[in-house]
Amino acid sequence: MQPTGRALPVALDAMGGDNAPGEIVAGAVQAVRERNVPVVLVGHPRVLYLELARHDAVSEIPIVRAEEALAMDEGALASLRRPRSSIAIACHLVRRGDACAVVSAGSTAGVVATGRLRLRAQQGVVRPAIAVGLPTLPQPTVLLDAGATADAKPEMLVQFAHLGVAYAETALGMPRPSVGLLTIGAEPEKGNKLAKRAHELLAATPGIDFAGNIEGHDLLTRKVDVVVTDGFTGNVALKTVEGTVRYAFEQLRETLAESRVARLGGMLQRARLRELAGRLDPEAHGGAVLLGLNGTVVIAHGSSRARGVAAACELAARLSAQGIIARIGERVATTNKSHRRW
Amino acid sequence: MQPTGRALPVALDAMGGDNAPGEIVAGAVQAVRERNVPVVLVGHPRVLYLELARHDAVSEIPIVRAEEALAMDEGALASLRRPRSSIAIACHLVRRGDACAVVSAGSTAGVVATGRLRLRAQQGVVRPAIAVGLPTLPQPTVLLDAGATADAKPEMLVQFAHLGVAYAETALGMPRPSVGLLTIGAEPEKGNKLAKRAHELLAATPGIDFAGNIEGHDLLTRKVDVVVTDGFTGNVALKTVEGTVRYAFEQLRETLAESRVARLGGMLQRARLRELAGRLDPEAHGGAVLLGLNGTVVIAHGSSRARGVAAACELAARLSAQGIIARIGERVATTNKSHRRW
Repeated sequence: MQPTGRALPVALDAMGGDNAPGEIVAGAVQAVRERNVPVVLVGHPRVLYLELARHDAVSEIPIVRAEEALAMDEGALASLRRPRSSIAIACHLVRRGDACAVVSAGSTAGVVATGRLRLRAQQGVVRPAIAVGLPTLPQPTVLLDAGATADAKPEMLVQFAHLGVAYAETALGMPRPSVGLLTIGAEPEKGNKLAKRAHELLAATPGIDFAGNIEGHDLLTRKVDVVVTDGFTGNVALKTVEGTVRYAFEQLRETLAESRVARLGGMLQRARLRELAGRLDPEAHGGAVLLGLNGTVVIAHGSSRARGVAAACELAARLSAQGIIARIGERVATTNKSHRRW
Repeated sequence: MQPTGRALPVALDAMGGDNAPGEIVAGAVQAVRERNVPVVLVGHPRVLYLELARHDAVSEIPIVRAEEALAMDEGALASLRRPRSSIAIACHLVRRGDACAVVSAGSTAGVVATGRLRLRAQQGVVRPAIAVGLPTLPQPTVLLDAGATADAKPEMLVQFAHLGVAYAETALGMPRPSVGLLTIGAEPEKGNKLAKRAHELLAATPGIDFAGNIEGHDLLTRKVDVVVTDGFTGNVALKTVEGTVRYAFEQLRETLAESRVARLGGMLQRARLRELAGRLDPEAHGGAVLLGLNGTVVIAHGSSRARGVAAACELAARLSAQGIIARIGERVATTNKSHRRW
């Protein structure tokens, strides 16, 4: 173990993800050696031992046995049927105090279902939400829910706002994060029934700096610090941002390759473009965070490679060290009290 | 009037849009002179006369009087209270057979509400939908509903599929358009309740080439010809694509401006980039089409300038000439019959 001393390790689901276990183990090695984050690997011991041996890291990273693994295409139901899956065991380690947080690049539905079952929702939280950082400058914009709760009720969106504010304060050091509601027009009465009712509730919630409605084209303009929406809309919006960035860069690359003059220009800029593409790469941000459970869970991109896994481990350790769960607990407790007062 | 002979004119709402009436009238002049599309302007006669005079076009384009106009921030309710608004009169011209189609750059909610009230839904269509073309190559991808019906039922999504297929066949000449359902996972059971039920219905609908679920990152990959979703999700997705394209280009411009070497490269490519930005510009495509009513309605971008308005008029005239409404009628009639057979 690294000289971080007493810090609890991150429980890393070594069997989850398109590139598991090779890139996951490589990410664990990076996290331990380069980012000073202690990690425990959860999965098939023999497979993981061999992977660790390739990095000469057998003595640096402990392994916890899990007989089963969730396949990437297995959904919520399958995960409930596998109490010995690597993600279930990783949650168990956090629950009994042997790890500070969970990291998995496995199927989002599987991680969410397992997390809800094994870690349970925090007191006062009805449903968890997934928070992601959109690639804005100078700071990311927090979007949630990005897919944990597809059919949300208006009251849940108010809770998501609390989760998002706690995350923005804790993980990103924002002093008083503003909150916007993702909908389809600036006026309060614009939207579907869910959004219209959520607008009313958010406007009446103390402790939330509600900036009103925002639309799809405001997601990357830093109009607000935290964007709240249901898990269906949020997931569509997030993947649309990712897909459109990829599309714009592909189109650009083709445009640059089309003529010889442009090609010369393209060569001159290659380094700069790589930089920009890197900034917009979701892997660089460490992944999505499942908020509202009795334990921090970071969901890395399914296609994560070592660098993305290491970033996710660092994010998980930082969130845990900064006490995100206690912070959420305080916020939710305050609201419930003030709700009761009405 | 231009030598297109007998063709009915497009009724153009001259008072709707951020740049009305100046750019709208300029767009009408372009449509008539450069695209050979007959247009009648609807709005305040004196104002429009003066604008036409600036283009020396008083004798080329007739004016139909409308005393009122909908403001850009007026929603559905206001539009119902204004039977003499320019958009209401434009719809009236289509209804009584004096115009072939309506074009407006006014508030989407106002245009949709007025269109539903004045033109009524086609027989067999419960709710209209807005279809837009996403900027893919070699052909656009049709997305609907982009905002007409925020709270949709699963059965409506099946109708939207028919509207979208008719649009893709008619306006884009696609022989047998494939349809995808926008949701948050590839498997049929992924999504919110609406999407899951819509998946079942679409899979069981004859006459629809249903390709299954697609996700946000597939919107620009030409995986399917027509993407179906509810008006809330569709509007968020469309605006997210637009906002992300704009963001990627801004980031790129900054990146190119940052260093002198890169700046040189940037100069060499400027023309190519302009071309690419133009292709991704929503104005170039002529706007969104409100489908399912007894009359073709094209909703141009609120910020449209003359070129966008002219493109919208051309699109409206083409859709009308190609008999989009009859085509939708046939499709919907077939389904209703086959539904009855079950």
